[in-house]
Amino acid sequence: MKLSLLNELRVQNPIVFNISNFVTVQDVANGLNALGASPIMSEEVAEAAEMVGIANAVCLNLGAFTERQIEQIQTVGQLANEQHRPLVIDPVAVGAVTYRKHVANHLLETFHPDVIRGNAGEIAALADITWAAKGIDAGSGDGDLVAIAQACAQKLSCTVILSGPTDIITDGTRTVKVMNGTPLFQVHVGSGDMLSSIVGAFCAIEPDAFEAAQTACLVFAAIGQLVVEANPDVAAGSFIVKLLDALQTTTVTDIEAVAAFE
Amino acid sequence: MKLSLLNELRVQNPIVFNISNFVTVQDVANGLNALGASPIMSEEVAEAAEMVGIANAVCLNLGAFTERQIEQIQTVGQLANEQHRPLVIDPVAVGAVTYRKHVANHLLETFHPDVIRGNAGEIAALADITWAAKGIDAGSGDGDLVAIAQACAQKLSCTVILSGPTDIITDGTRTVKVMNGTPLFQVHVGSGDMLSSIVGAFCAIEPDAFEAAQTACLVFAAIGQLVVEANPDVAAGSFIVKLLDALQTTTVTDIEAVAAFE
Amino acid sequence: MKLSLLNELRVQNPIVFNISNFVTVQDVANGLNALGASPIMSEEVAEAAEMVGIANAVCLNLGAFTERQIEQIQTVGQLANEQHRPLVIDPVAVGAVTYRKHVANHLLETFHPDVIRGNAGEIAALADITWAAKGIDAGSGDGDLVAIAQACAQKLSCTVILSGPTDIITDGTRTVKVMNGTPLFQVHVGSGDMLSSIVGAFCAIEPDAFEAAQTACLVFAAIGQLVVEANPDVAAGSFIVKLLDALQTTTVTDIEAVAAFE
Repeated sequence: MKLSLLNELRVQNPIVFNISNFVTVQDVANGLNALGASPIMSEEVAEAAEMVGIANAVCLNLGAFTERQIEQIQTVGQLANEQHRPLVIDPVAVGAVTYRKHVANHLLETFHPDVIRGNAGEIAALADITWAAKGIDAGSGDGDLVAIAQACAQKLSCTVILSGPTDIITDGTRTVKVMNGTPLFQVHVGSGDMLSSIVGAFCAIEPDAFEAAQTACLVFAAIGQLVVEANPDVAAGSFIVKLLDALQTTTVTDIEAVAAFE
Repeated sequence: MKLSLLNELRVQNPIVFNISNFVTVQDVANGLNALGASPIMSEEVAEAAEMVGIANAVCLNLGAFTERQIEQIQTVGQLANEQHRPLVIDPVAVGAVTYRKHVANHLLETFHPDVIRGNAGEIAALADITWAAKGIDAGSGDGDLVAIAQACAQKLSCTVILSGPTDIITDGTRTVKVMNGTPLFQVHVGSGDMLSSIVGAFCAIEPDAFEAAQTACLVFAAIGQLVVEANPDVAAGSFIVKLLDALQTTTVTDIEAVAAFE
Repeated sequence: MKLSLLNELRVQNPIVFNISNFVTVQDVANGLNALGASPIMSEEVAEAAEMVGIANAVCLNLGAFTERQIEQIQTVGQLANEQHRPLVIDPVAVGAVTYRKHVANHLLETFHPDVIRGNAGEIAALADITWAAKGIDAGSGDGDLVAIAQACAQKLSCTVILSGPTDIITDGTRTVKVMNGTPLFQVHVGSGDMLSSIVGAFCAIEPDAFEAAQTACLVFAAIGQLVVEANPDVAAGSFIVKLLDALQTTTVTDIEAVAAFE
């Protein structure tokens, strides 16, 4: 686990180009900014090549898109591949909505992601494994989560992050579990989208996507946990406020003190 | 007043499908989530039928739409009727903008809402009663607010919530007034939209829309009031943070202690 | 410096019609509301004339637009000119993205703004002065910022606000510097967009755009500084919460006590 990447990120201030869903876009921008990266957003395909050109990483959120946005997502994904920018995909609700699964599967035939981050229901859907997803939530199932994440990573030849109470990060061969976190991440709608973009920021400074992904997960989960430990009364609203504060102020030493992974 | 519905909502965790305006969409999602419901958003008509299918209630916000979104709003409203999902409408600014009034009137000829929630200017506009609305704000007039709400409910054969310092809830015959609340609701732009979606969440678990609507109003208004009583210094920014916290943590007993309705 | 304009703004509650970028739109709405103005947003060209008609000022944000939105921005800008509504432009990222610079230059041939607000990279780009911008951030350069702002103001015959650690406000002849502020404005993504709309609110009540612009800058910068002085531990998340609170509660006297301008 290369926790020193957090210090490098804050020095390098990488630009992450996000096609974000409209529900959580401000949280994503603020989360990147607070951590020490530089967010840029765009919905216009005419500036896609230029945006990818100035970006150090690209993060595509597949939540709440329209047909027109799908074209742009495809273009940007292909541009990221062509211009060798790390590419992170967040397949929102592909486990619950068949239409989104079809679109995601189609998109993943047109470009290659370095990292896919989703909950159990989303990762299972991409791996074609049966799972009872519920809306945007993970749902429940009794599959082996590590096996599901590995199957998805092998099928799509990329690093997979299966987010949950324990995050599972795997490139299909190597696997790490991050046990830090707090249930409050599930109560705030933007948490997963924020993590996906932060994974992008770490990929911008670390060429090994598996290393970048696991570090991003540990940093994010540990900071969330530290927020709750320092503020036992936080709930749905104050958690995100204090999380943004802590993304800015938490040090590598703070994280090392609670880091739990194997 | 069935306050126990709040406990049922938290157990059942109903999915509310929202077509939200882009200004307040994140607040709406976080408000539903904090209270104990599960939000899902979409802007794409191709997934409308599937979204309505997995939803337990539908909430259509008529603020800030484009022509393309109107098509989707119409499709989703009709699907909600066909699939017997409770349907809540929030007619943002129909009192101030003639174009929005025309669009809303047209839409209301193509589907039937179970609940309409708006401020005095918006409800008066839908009831074709003269009122001086101002932008997105209620404006002022000297009409009888109860008569305006009842006229709207009778004209459109649904439950109407006329939001204000006192909320008026009526199905055209039965009428309840909720006197709880705080002026800070008016200072935060997303308050009304958040309430509309929360009405949807209560309609998902209570078939009588009038019962669901009045309970939602009392729960939301009382929680806002409790926030201000517990934190006399809250203002525009901290109010929403503490409101989200309180949506998650306030109990039926807490609400009963301050409930004021007749 | 007419600080009493803040009191007038709170009495008059001017309506500001914003075409906002989707990243920061809720902050913009809440910021206007907290200060005492009344925000209204729309993405639909069919209601553009009516929106401009009910507005007391118009603010066009050129961040994150699509081709379709460009048409609407052009229409609304022209309507603001025709209907003599004060017009504020925020040229997001025109310094970093050539496509945005071309679009902005084209738009500025079709309507005339009263005020343009941007960071050094954005204002330099509009003035055709070389500058190393970085994404949505100001970037760095060694030009004379006052000369850059004046060149832009003279070229476009309007008031220019060049935002930064020191804000420079100029109509090409008269120039004021506002030295208040806090580095936390840079950490929160919506700060600049919020200021642009607040400039619109002041333009709605003060016909001299140069006077309105400098007062808006001083009010916003001083309130941010007061927030940090009163809460030394604020960071990325809590700053915006307390800023919204302070936009609502800070008095002219509070601002006078720290005002630093020349």
